Amino acid sequence: MVKVGIVGGTGYTGVELLRLLAGHDKAEVILITSRAECGRRVDEIFPSLRGHYDLAFSDPDVKQLAACDIVFFATPHNVAMHLVPELLRADTRVIDLSADYRIRDAQLWSQWYGEPHASPDLLSSAVYGLPEINRQQIASAQLTACPGCYPTSVQLGFIPLLANGLIDPTQLIASSASGASGAGRQAKIDNLLSEVSDSFKAYAVAGHRHLPEIEQGLSDVAGTEVKLTFVPHLLPIVRGIHSTLFAQLSGPVDDLQELFESFYADEPFVDVLPAGVFPQTRSVKGSNRCQLSVMRPQNRDTVVVTVVEDNLVKGASGQAIQNMNIMLGLPEGMGLANIGLSP
Amino acid sequence: MVKVGIVGGTGYTGVELLRLLAGHDKAEVILITSRAECGRRVDEIFPSLRGHYDLAFSDPDVKQLAACDIVFFATPHNVAMHLVPELLRADTRVIDLSADYRIRDAQLWSQWYGEPHASPDLLSSAVYGLPEINRQQIASAQLTACPGCYPTSVQLGFIPLLANGLIDPTQLIASSASGASGAGRQAKIDNLLSEVSDSFKAYAVAGHRHLPEIEQGLSDVAGTEVKLTFVPHLLPIVRGIHSTLFAQLSGPVDDLQELFESFYADEPFVDVLPAGVFPQTRSVKGSNRCQLSVMRPQNRDTVVVTVVEDNLVKGASGQAIQNMNIMLGLPEGMGLANIGLSP
Amino acid sequence: MVKVGIVGGTGYTGVELLRLLAGHDKAEVILITSRAECGRRVDEIFPSLRGHYDLAFSDPDVKQLAACDIVFFATPHNVAMHLVPELLRADTRVIDLSADYRIRDAQLWSQWYGEPHASPDLLSSAVYGLPEINRQQIASAQLTACPGCYPTSVQLGFIPLLANGLIDPTQLIASSASGASGAGRQAKIDNLLSEVSDSFKAYAVAGHRHLPEIEQGLSDVAGTEVKLTFVPHLLPIVRGIHSTLFAQLSGPVDDLQELFESFYADEPFVDVLPAGVFPQTRSVKGSNRCQLSVMRPQNRDTVVVTVVEDNLVKGASGQAIQNMNIMLGLPEGMGLANIGLSP
Amino acid sequence: MVKVGIVGGTGYTGVELLRLLAGHDKAEVILITSRAECGRRVDEIFPSLRGHYDLAFSDPDVKQLAACDIVFFATPHNVAMHLVPELLRADTRVIDLSADYRIRDAQLWSQWYGEPHASPDLLSSAVYGLPEINRQQIASAQLTACPGCYPTSVQLGFIPLLANGLIDPTQLIASSASGASGAGRQAKIDNLLSEVSDSFKAYAVAGHRHLPEIEQGLSDVAGTEVKLTFVPHLLPIVRGIHSTLFAQLSGPVDDLQELFESFYADEPFVDVLPAGVFPQTRSVKGSNRCQLSVMRPQNRDTVVVTVVEDNLVKGASGQAIQNMNIMLGLPEGMGLANIGLSP
Repeated sequence: MVKVGIVGGTGYTGVELLRLLAGHDKAEVILITSRAECGRRVDEIFPSLRGHYDLAFSDPDVKQLAACDIVFFATPHNVAMHLVPELLRADTRVIDLSADYRIRDAQLWSQWYGEPHASPDLLSSAVYGLPEINRQQIASAQLTACPGCYPTSVQLGFIPLLANGLIDPTQLIASSASGASGAGRQAKIDNLLSEVSDSFKAYAVAGHRHLPEIEQGLSDVAGTEVKLTFVPHLLPIVRGIHSTLFAQLSGPVDDLQELFESFYADEPFVDVLPAGVFPQTRSVKGSNRCQLSVMRPQNRDTVVVTVVEDNLVKGASGQAIQNMNIMLGLPEGMGLANIGLSP
Repeated sequence: MVKVGIVGGTGYTGVELLRLLAGHDKAEVILITSRAECGRRVDEIFPSLRGHYDLAFSDPDVKQLAACDIVFFATPHNVAMHLVPELLRADTRVIDLSADYRIRDAQLWSQWYGEPHASPDLLSSAVYGLPEINRQQIASAQLTACPGCYPTSVQLGFIPLLANGLIDPTQLIASSASGASGAGRQAKIDNLLSEVSDSFKAYAVAGHRHLPEIEQGLSDVAGTEVKLTFVPHLLPIVRGIHSTLFAQLSGPVDDLQELFESFYADEPFVDVLPAGVFPQTRSVKGSNRCQLSVMRPQNRDTVVVTVVEDNLVKGASGQAIQNMNIMLGLPEGMGLANIGLSP
Repeated sequence: MVKVGIVGGTGYTGVELLRLLAGHDKAEVILITSRAECGRRVDEIFPSLRGHYDLAFSDPDVKQLAACDIVFFATPHNVAMHLVPELLRADTRVIDLSADYRIRDAQLWSQWYGEPHASPDLLSSAVYGLPEINRQQIASAQLTACPGCYPTSVQLGFIPLLANGLIDPTQLIASSASGASGAGRQAKIDNLLSEVSDSFKAYAVAGHRHLPEIEQGLSDVAGTEVKLTFVPHLLPIVRGIHSTLFAQLSGPVDDLQELFESFYADEPFVDVLPAGVFPQTRSVKGSNRCQLSVMRPQNRDTVVVTVVEDNLVKGASGQAIQNMNIMLGLPEGMGLANIGLSP
Repeated sequence: MVKVGIVGGTGYTGVELLRLLAGHDKAEVILITSRAECGRRVDEIFPSLRGHYDLAFSDPDVKQLAACDIVFFATPHNVAMHLVPELLRADTRVIDLSADYRIRDAQLWSQWYGEPHASPDLLSSAVYGLPEINRQQIASAQLTACPGCYPTSVQLGFIPLLANGLIDPTQLIASSASGASGAGRQAKIDNLLSEVSDSFKAYAVAGHRHLPEIEQGLSDVAGTEVKLTFVPHLLPIVRGIHSTLFAQLSGPVDDLQELFESFYADEPFVDVLPAGVFPQTRSVKGSNRCQLSVMRPQNRDTVVVTVVEDNLVKGASGQAIQNMNIMLGLPEGMGLANIGLSP
């Protein structure tokens, strides 16, 4: 069994790693850390896990982590970048679910995250863990930076169009909406049920931290600088991201439906819906699947792509395990067979 | 007291008219019709109204309706257009909350609503009941066609930009989201809590019936043909519409915040939020207010307007009463003082 | 106008007082305090109030408060009991929405609230503000202690039975459920949407602080010691309390429906539903009304009473204003005409 | 592979059987019927199942069903009782998720379900499929009647107390609450999101059809006639049942916690929580687990048991598969390893 460590196990991506890895045939979580809950049993905080783990949270200790084959960081940004260098030196492979290694340009990172990067020399060797684009590099990566939840959905939707040069890359628009679990398990008034439930709003319109990450990824695919207007919204649900993407066609196109279907034909976790069918977040709740559709309303020049994923699965912990499987040469879907919990 | 009749009182816009008119100083509902619930007391179906109405539903009867000073149609489309002509002949003024008289072009109406219009001769004299644009015409209207819920929010957001010629009218985008009450009180599997709750999806991407109505209204303001890509979404809440609007600036602009604030300075029911603050649907729940914000992310050429309203109030029954007040020369806000129920 | 001060205006009962008092003809909020938000405008934190208040939060200052005719405490427990004595000495009347003066026995209070009472001498003169029981005493009270949200619903349900000696007072059961706003506007992980939404649970089964308050109130009515098993639950909604009450009939009874209807016949805010109709929380959302029903399933000896209220209105701020109206000799329903927001 | 047929596949218990059986190692769904959707692909109606089934709905045909090894009825009541006799004659084993064979007394059944039973002779040989009580009889059953969703939770909570003779069997109380999926996938106004969401209510207080089933099961365990007051409530969530049970202790008791823990020590799907911890429905969402707790508040004579389950899994389709595994001699938990989707 592959020995797995998790840093920061009390957040939503941490418990989601535990949920998914409990059903993984080749990996076993042997270590899970949390400063705040050190000593407390995992299943005391997460009663859904009773009977599946006989583990308690421990203080993060680099030596113990280095004894794992692979370590997941399920932490806020600004944690991994301090610990990862030592783990890599010990030949432990790392999958970082936080933002620390997603952006290649250290200065750009600093600008959006408000402090200098602690291990900028690793940025160039970190592999951006979007398997649909970087599967080969992930296979040999020592350090994989998992994409953010919004960026996964926005990139998977735009990539077939940009890769084929069909749209104006300077005028992309993403109107995305996320369930409240995306804000993490933190004690903030803003995320109380009484504040968020039965309501809907846009936020971070001036600039969300996922914007530079998305523009970097899309620019790589487009081979030119991409400009995106990105407006995230907060949904009064726990799980689920829905991105509605708009782009201007730059010339005549054939069959967009066929283009998307063939682009993702071999992808196990990207499902292009039949023409005229639009995805709903509930269909992928708890599953590692991204479902999407493409349409050109009124046959005009604006193309609309709608994309759904579970922000905690394909948008975080599921994709992290998908990356782990690729890195370890395991079947890519191992431990990821869950079907969306619908209704 | 003004004698009010309501046709189609068992839907959500009907009960909302009753809720709001119960607190109106100058109007009294004397007649409310429903074929299906004929004879049943209003407060039996809507227990929130107990003690406020001593009325039962009756079969729609044109003569009885004609005895009212003003009649609201809170019906699906394809009802009002058959009854309104006779009411107008009897000098009863009519406020239609349905789609029957919103579109001036009878052929366009037929194309979107799937049947010939029954009283196309009235289309030119019907006044489109968006007070912020048509206040004067509404005052003397015999027949007012209340805007749809989505169209109210989308128009109020784009109008200041279009009226000032600041944006490209051929490339407008509206990503809107509505609570489930917008789908009406109809027995459909698609609107069950178990189908809609805890989920989010786009729908009618190929073309929603509100599209021609919005394009007509915006074209009037722009003085040129407007093209809109309109994608509605279904929110897992009861009330509330949120529209996120995107447009391309067609040249240099000054202060958009100031522009919006002065444009709506005298409007009692449109509230431009301070710069950097974005509206949430819960702030206007149950109230007749539209709150909106404008921003230009990254100082690029795409301007973003976010707009909220309660689809049943400013998006339907509240706006209908606002129109009634204008038509009757009453203070425009009478009966509409409700503050948003937040939290 | 009656000059009103509010201590602790940033919680949910504070903003609800503001919402309701904005529509009150005879009272005007002139002072609202908050240590944490001192200097910030009220409508900046609560955008639903924009245009209704031109006030900022100030630091609590007893002299300024004493200049008000009436002061509401919308604070957690352990605040009012330190400030009220000085206000009463200044002849300012006080309505306390917190728990500080609800329990007459200072020792019992200490046992449940974990500290000595700071002004125990006031406990005997404080009037328990349940108008349906204590209307006369409230009229002349200097200090009114508003009932808790659960206690209001449980007492209103049991009182007709206990007052008529129909049930065994030693074996009462209340299975109650509250929306999340009952937990207050506090930054706690337990109340995040992601923790509470889409779920249901019992809590505080071992003993909730509202238990001694309910038993005191019911014992007063019964004229003997009442024993209640009280299990509160957390609903994934914002507003609303539903109490399902069970009691054993102690002998033959006539018509329970008639008994309840006549008991509450003159009460403006208690509405006994027709036989066979059961209340739902949405019917009273935002309104000061309590709706209830009584039934004897299978004609057995267990009677079931179901009761709903909005925990922030009849369960808190609405009842507080009802008390204010009584204390000031105003019409009892002034400012409380809101109809439940349904749907 | 065991060949499985499903009758009535378009309801929520039908799609839940499909979700769970997709991950079952030894069973394969080869036939799924629906009159209304005959010919339509399963994954067209349930997009979460795309890629997992290559099946279309067919008209129910007894011969085709008889060719299966085992047939599930996921139908409303009054369907199975007409088809089951012929299937049993063909030696096909049947698991009925509906109410048709749950009550042994045909007359009692008729009284609650409003028509004569169509195959009353089978009632005595049908096995009530609550594995925790009837595991041995289930193993050899030809026809297993799966318990209702409420009855599963109420029985599992009361049984340890009744089996040990600790409580008064004539005065049981169950205050239960169910998610809206319990009402099925039927087009009814009462179950619209706009009617049910953001609200809570009791229903069927006069007598729910699950009452005689629960009383029958509990009487079997108690060895005497049990009388239950059962009040179901509707939760504004999709999945989950929470039952709060009250009983009067009939004499001195030792350690209730220990009693429950040992009673269920060997049960794979019943999890007694540690003392002082109370279950929440989200912890078992999507899983076949029942979690429960027992407590004696204030050390008085009323014992409180709280129980949660997913009404579609342990309350329906998961328990049906658990029964199938027992009937086929497979490991009881096969296909039922899902962990609760929390958050």
